[in-house]
Amino acid sequence: MPSTVSTQIQLAARPTGWPTNDDFRTVEVEYSAPSEGEVRVRNEYVSVDPYMRGRMNDVRSYVAPYALGERIVGGAIGRVVVSNAPELPVGAIVLHQHGWSDVIQADASTFRAVPEMPGVPLSLRLHILGMTGLTAYVGLTAIAHLQPGDTVFVSGAAGAVGTAVGQIAKLLGAARVIGSAGTPEKVALLTEKYGYDAAFNYKDGDVRAQLAAAAPDGIDVFFDNVGGDHLEAALDVFNDGGRAALCGAIAGYNTTAPTPGPDNMANIITRGLALRGFTLAGYLDLAPEFQQKMAGWFAEGRIAYDETIVEGIERTVDAFLDMMRGANTGKMLVRIAPEGGSSAA
Amino acid sequence: MPSTVSTQIQLAARPTGWPTNDDFRTVEVEYSAPSEGEVRVRNEYVSVDPYMRGRMNDVRSYVAPYALGERIVGGAIGRVVVSNAPELPVGAIVLHQHGWSDVIQADASTFRAVPEMPGVPLSLRLHILGMTGLTAYVGLTAIAHLQPGDTVFVSGAAGAVGTAVGQIAKLLGAARVIGSAGTPEKVALLTEKYGYDAAFNYKDGDVRAQLAAAAPDGIDVFFDNVGGDHLEAALDVFNDGGRAALCGAIAGYNTTAPTPGPDNMANIITRGLALRGFTLAGYLDLAPEFQQKMAGWFAEGRIAYDETIVEGIERTVDAFLDMMRGANTGKMLVRIAPEGGSSAA
Repeated sequence: MPSTVSTQIQLAARPTGWPTNDDFRTVEVEYSAPSEGEVRVRNEYVSVDPYMRGRMNDVRSYVAPYALGERIVGGAIGRVVVSNAPELPVGAIVLHQHGWSDVIQADASTFRAVPEMPGVPLSLRLHILGMTGLTAYVGLTAIAHLQPGDTVFVSGAAGAVGTAVGQIAKLLGAARVIGSAGTPEKVALLTEKYGYDAAFNYKDGDVRAQLAAAAPDGIDVFFDNVGGDHLEAALDVFNDGGRAALCGAIAGYNTTAPTPGPDNMANIITRGLALRGFTLAGYLDLAPEFQQKMAGWFAEGRIAYDETIVEGIERTVDAFLDMMRGANTGKMLVRIAPEGGSSAA
Repeated sequence: MPSTVSTQIQLAARPTGWPTNDDFRTVEVEYSAPSEGEVRVRNEYVSVDPYMRGRMNDVRSYVAPYALGERIVGGAIGRVVVSNAPELPVGAIVLHQHGWSDVIQADASTFRAVPEMPGVPLSLRLHILGMTGLTAYVGLTAIAHLQPGDTVFVSGAAGAVGTAVGQIAKLLGAARVIGSAGTPEKVALLTEKYGYDAAFNYKDGDVRAQLAAAAPDGIDVFFDNVGGDHLEAALDVFNDGGRAALCGAIAGYNTTAPTPGPDNMANIITRGLALRGFTLAGYLDLAPEFQQKMAGWFAEGRIAYDETIVEGIERTVDAFLDMMRGANTGKMLVRIAPEGGSSAA
């Protein structure tokens, strides 16, 4: 069992405003042979997600901040390449939260074996069939209590979560789904590929006016990935008894000064609205229910997805920054080449 | 059955910003003998409430705006003085929503007979034993899901709803109740009479700093009557999973320009908070449950209250404006003198 060198990305400094490459450090970690109970995993895909920006700050949250000088942790999927744990033999496919590295070695209990699904790319376990899809499902069901016939508005709809939200909302009976995105290409994709009934480019002008035009009969559910002017626009057009699932606020992640909230908060009272923030940690018990439903929809060919893939662990920070700027459509992923070779397409 | 003249207050103009006397008109309405099925009621107390300011605007809400040129409707309690309906004989005590008038004549079905409670002033049916108490109860239970051991913050705590909220929260098991009010006398009353564990004067300085000092271990529930800086302060100190019942936003009722919302909305996501607005209309089914509990607490002498009483229907607008400025402690009411006499103390 040879030793190996792993390339890993650590948080070097807490970003102020927009992160830069200087806030991260690439290090090489040498692993000797795994101890008893440990396995060594070579990742195939590493996830970069908007919520990670929040964990780079030292603020109180459900999820602890990243430690300075330690590896950025988060979702990844790979294969066991060396095993000293009988329950995870070489070749097993594993999901884990060890984050930004090409190779990771740790106790077998920190990995979760997942069955290979014939014809289904492994990467999907990191998004539409994984946490991203679950986030969309939890937000629509447990948080926003989606009802058949509802009109749903999704901000940042062309991102990984947003593309899932629109489709799942329709599959659960939403009558009309409206999305916002930041380029004409993404806007087109929403209606042409993802089943959105209406979509607009939030860079084209006032979000309030654009949403009001797209939702002449109001909205019942708002799934928010953006915050800021999108939340304000939603509060304008909510029907009585409307429900918001606040999942992300990417508009504010990289601001350095506090920005004022919506100027129409009083609508929350007069229209009897419910705004609920959530992070997935409290709702993992819904994973089996989600996986069963999503596997069925996927097998029936009713689920579309996009991936924006960057090659090589050393480009993880670039992928993360590009994702924060909205360069991705669908899920942004880093692909790790197999040992000694280029990654398969 | 003689005819009679009723003094009534109508909305003459929609207020812009702070209402003035010019926005209202006092009229005399002459009632002839009641038709079959009608009763004539002489009010004893007429209610003025913060929510009425909202109904003076022509904006969409659960509750329709007041019509221009019509009587201001709202809660009142009185006695039947002339009856042409067997189910409501002369002398019956009735609650109703006919609003700002000394005498009202209408179909018997628009009045609700309530039993006289020996030793209990009639006025209490308009607040602690009535809609005000129910508002506090609904907000704490159905909206904010108060749990035993919770720390609760109440804004505008010396008002009619606020004094009820603090007491009911404690009776339902809250561990600590914190209130804000606008004068030193009200602040003293909160801790000395209403069982608040801590209280502060929001005019004394930064609400954020004062609340943070009063809630070193955070808050779990926020009952908001004020909005604005109070909501922002609450979002700062919420514990994970905290819940807000947004009942009123008196801070913004008389502003003419939109005012920005809290600058810390992102905490809703990171702490998994739930903010829910409500008006009582959707929760009247909780009235029997509330009345049973409150009657018990009241009989046990566990409920304190204050009333600020103005004499005479012609002073109703003054009472309303004083209430909006915070001149009241506890419930603001207008007392109507009995026909041909001064009102009993």
